[in-house]
Amino acid sequence: MKRILTTLLLIALTSILISQEKDKDVIGSIFNNVMDNDVAYENLRYLCDSTPGRLLGSENSYKAVDFMRNYFEELGADTVFLQEFTTPAWLHKSTQVTMYNNGIETVLMADALGPSPKTPEGGITGKVLMVYSLDELKETDSVTIAGKIVFFNRAIDQTQINPFRGYGGAVDQRYHGPALAAELGAAGVIIRSVGTRTDTFPHTGSTNYRKTLLPCAAISTVDADILTEALKLNSNIEINLNIDAQHLEEITSYNLIADIKGHEYPDEYIVVSGHIDAWFNTPGAHDDGAGCVQSADVLRIFKELGIKNKRSIRAIMYMDEELYQAGGYAYLEYCKNNNVSNYLAMEADAGAFTPRGFNVEASDSIVDIISSYQKLLEPYGIEYISKGGSGVDIRPLKELNVPLMGYRTDPQRYMDLHHSGYDSFDKIHIRELQLGSGNMAAIVYLIDKYGL
Amino acid sequence: MKRILTTLLLIALTSILISQEKDKDVIGSIFNNVMDNDVAYENLRYLCDSTPGRLLGSENSYKAVDFMRNYFEELGADTVFLQEFTTPAWLHKSTQVTMYNNGIETVLMADALGPSPKTPEGGITGKVLMVYSLDELKETDSVTIAGKIVFFNRAIDQTQINPFRGYGGAVDQRYHGPALAAELGAAGVIIRSVGTRTDTFPHTGSTNYRKTLLPCAAISTVDADILTEALKLNSNIEINLNIDAQHLEEITSYNLIADIKGHEYPDEYIVVSGHIDAWFNTPGAHDDGAGCVQSADVLRIFKELGIKNKRSIRAIMYMDEELYQAGGYAYLEYCKNNNVSNYLAMEADAGAFTPRGFNVEASDSIVDIISSYQKLLEPYGIEYISKGGSGVDIRPLKELNVPLMGYRTDPQRYMDLHHSGYDSFDKIHIRELQLGSGNMAAIVYLIDKYGL
Repeated sequence: MKRILTTLLLIALTSILISQEKDKDVIGSIFNNVMDNDVAYENLRYLCDSTPGRLLGSENSYKAVDFMRNYFEELGADTVFLQEFTTPAWLHKSTQVTMYNNGIETVLMADALGPSPKTPEGGITGKVLMVYSLDELKETDSVTIAGKIVFFNRAIDQTQINPFRGYGGAVDQRYHGPALAAELGAAGVIIRSVGTRTDTFPHTGSTNYRKTLLPCAAISTVDADILTEALKLNSNIEINLNIDAQHLEEITSYNLIADIKGHEYPDEYIVVSGHIDAWFNTPGAHDDGAGCVQSADVLRIFKELGIKNKRSIRAIMYMDEELYQAGGYAYLEYCKNNNVSNYLAMEADAGAFTPRGFNVEASDSIVDIISSYQKLLEPYGIEYISKGGSGVDIRPLKELNVPLMGYRTDPQRYMDLHHSGYDSFDKIHIRELQLGSGNMAAIVYLIDKYGL
Repeated sequence: MKRILTTLLLIALTSILISQEKDKDVIGSIFNNVMDNDVAYENLRYLCDSTPGRLLGSENSYKAVDFMRNYFEELGADTVFLQEFTTPAWLHKSTQVTMYNNGIETVLMADALGPSPKTPEGGITGKVLMVYSLDELKETDSVTIAGKIVFFNRAIDQTQINPFRGYGGAVDQRYHGPALAAELGAAGVIIRSVGTRTDTFPHTGSTNYRKTLLPCAAISTVDADILTEALKLNSNIEINLNIDAQHLEEITSYNLIADIKGHEYPDEYIVVSGHIDAWFNTPGAHDDGAGCVQSADVLRIFKELGIKNKRSIRAIMYMDEELYQAGGYAYLEYCKNNNVSNYLAMEADAGAFTPRGFNVEASDSIVDIISSYQKLLEPYGIEYISKGGSGVDIRPLKELNVPLMGYRTDPQRYMDLHHSGYDSFDKIHIRELQLGSGNMAAIVYLIDKYGL
């Protein structure tokens, strides 16, 4: 009996070891493929150079979807389709912020926040009330606020080691500032760009559109410094804020979806995704053209290597992460209406920098299973797989209890470029981009093979 | 008795916990200081912009040492001195590589390898023998080799996940190629630049100067591709290799040394170092101006925070890592002659990219002690502290059994710029540079406090 048990144990151990070796080989072949392939890089070049500013409803948003649809069709994905939805939209046309200081006019580099109201012809002009927090504004008397352009000037705390935390500590001014200033009687809002670089790129972003808003714009960090210094010498400085933008009640837009069919469970989908929209002021290289082309690359890798996936692998290029998250909610509705079973959904929306890890937003037991793959991916830069937030577009799927994941990269450079014109194709490092595609493909391979 | 033991145990545990909290606080204060300080960044800007090409013996090498000496004196280091030595040197003046293809002249972007002989007036001209390895050249008959310009054309293997490994797989052509080709009767050597980017920057580097050399140069990867394609169509292409350089039998040069005195063991030195020389063709931002200003920053941090170091902390800006390692050997001699006790020596010479870890080149027990600090540095990007190679300049100190360490950063971008003009100040990310200074200071603090 003992001998039989020993033999069985040996067989079991041997098969585990063989399986691990097989996994190492497959993962090795994934990286051999991807590190020598520039398809994702060249796709991203197109998105950045030919469809910049592809915000929901813009011409370039449709052009970008078209380009990637063609790519998936040429790749030979089994299914490629546009998942249509209707949504309100907001189109930016122009932003101009001018400082009047003792008769001298200075144009400040600025971009409207989304979805800022347009200003009347000629813009609005007012004296500046500079504050460093929402609380400071709340504590200011209403006479002082009335008719002013409120300037939220708190910078990112650079001593935060993770710049996402620095961002989190300053972005309340952008998100809540315009609505609060409206409530308190101001005329308009400008904010210091929420970014880590001192440069002349304005960083836009969304502001709370569920409330009444004032015309609002972000000025670059350099321009915020210029204005700060000027206000020290002259508190009578005036700002003219001139924004042209259009609110559309309903437009038709699309998520782009491409699948390669599973061999055993074709109706279960493992989703890899990014968002194809980008703010009007940026090529959207890291945010999030990269996540789109990396997700697309997962399908390419599986097809080229002939990896037999049990479940269907679905790439989604979500529309409208930036403004209303219309695409994310539309895909949820689509899944509910069509009983689509998402086995797991992953999003890459943290930039295409050097790999660091994966976050898993799921039950502890699923986190444990997926974490156990970290050792296999460590040679490729994955230091952690742990419980944590996933991605804005896939988060609505929590309602259906879908396990979610987010691909995470080194955070140091991201807030330099987030939502600004600095997020251009030349900031993409091809090897770092490729490592992202490879790690996403490898973990999808393991999740598909071993199940959750 | 039992109660006394319990009480003693509690006291011991409490003091350990308090000590850990204290360490966290000190490390926190180090990073609060460094992430908000641009002194190292601005020092590096000077080195790159005002003293590029600061190779051993060059005017800029002396100017760079002067600049950093002034910096240490203004900082108020306790001791600042030039550690003088004599050495042969090699000065590059010009490199020109021209391709003659059916009467058309094309200049290829090229830089001499160090220390290439100069060519006769007008250079040397020959047909091209393209090979992909040393072995391929060895297997070629001598008639074919005679009088040829040998073109070593093997590229870095991009599928290597660590580009340092890719580099290691191609650099034999640079290091051994010119001597081998001389032995076998060729007239000159050009190599494909050992770099990961496809661009027009030549990457120079050292070649085995202990053997007889031919005139030799690296051409950029783009130019290597141009030449490869041209040779497919016309094997009669000729190359003119025109190098002006000067060999000096003996010059005087310096390592720059600055100390802040220890309070308990002032005669024991914890060394932090980089090399201040850089190839003639580059601003030397990552290689290794960064390591110098980061090492200097460790002293600044200790002084500004008033951290009481038991042992003396010594910053060394080594001269001549690139060519003969004259500075590293000179410091060893200096230590032997003056009975200098180096408690530990650390070098930063892997670029100022986002932190990854430390290597320790020491006994297992010392590796274990230093590794135990990893958890404290994990929040600052240090994922590993493990046994491994340290640095070229400090390696001679192994003769004195000095424990050695190397600071390690993310490797993906390093071989893009190594030994080329692409290694310029704009490639430095201020936060990544600061994180390096901070981690070096933090680990020096722990090593000094707890001992080895």
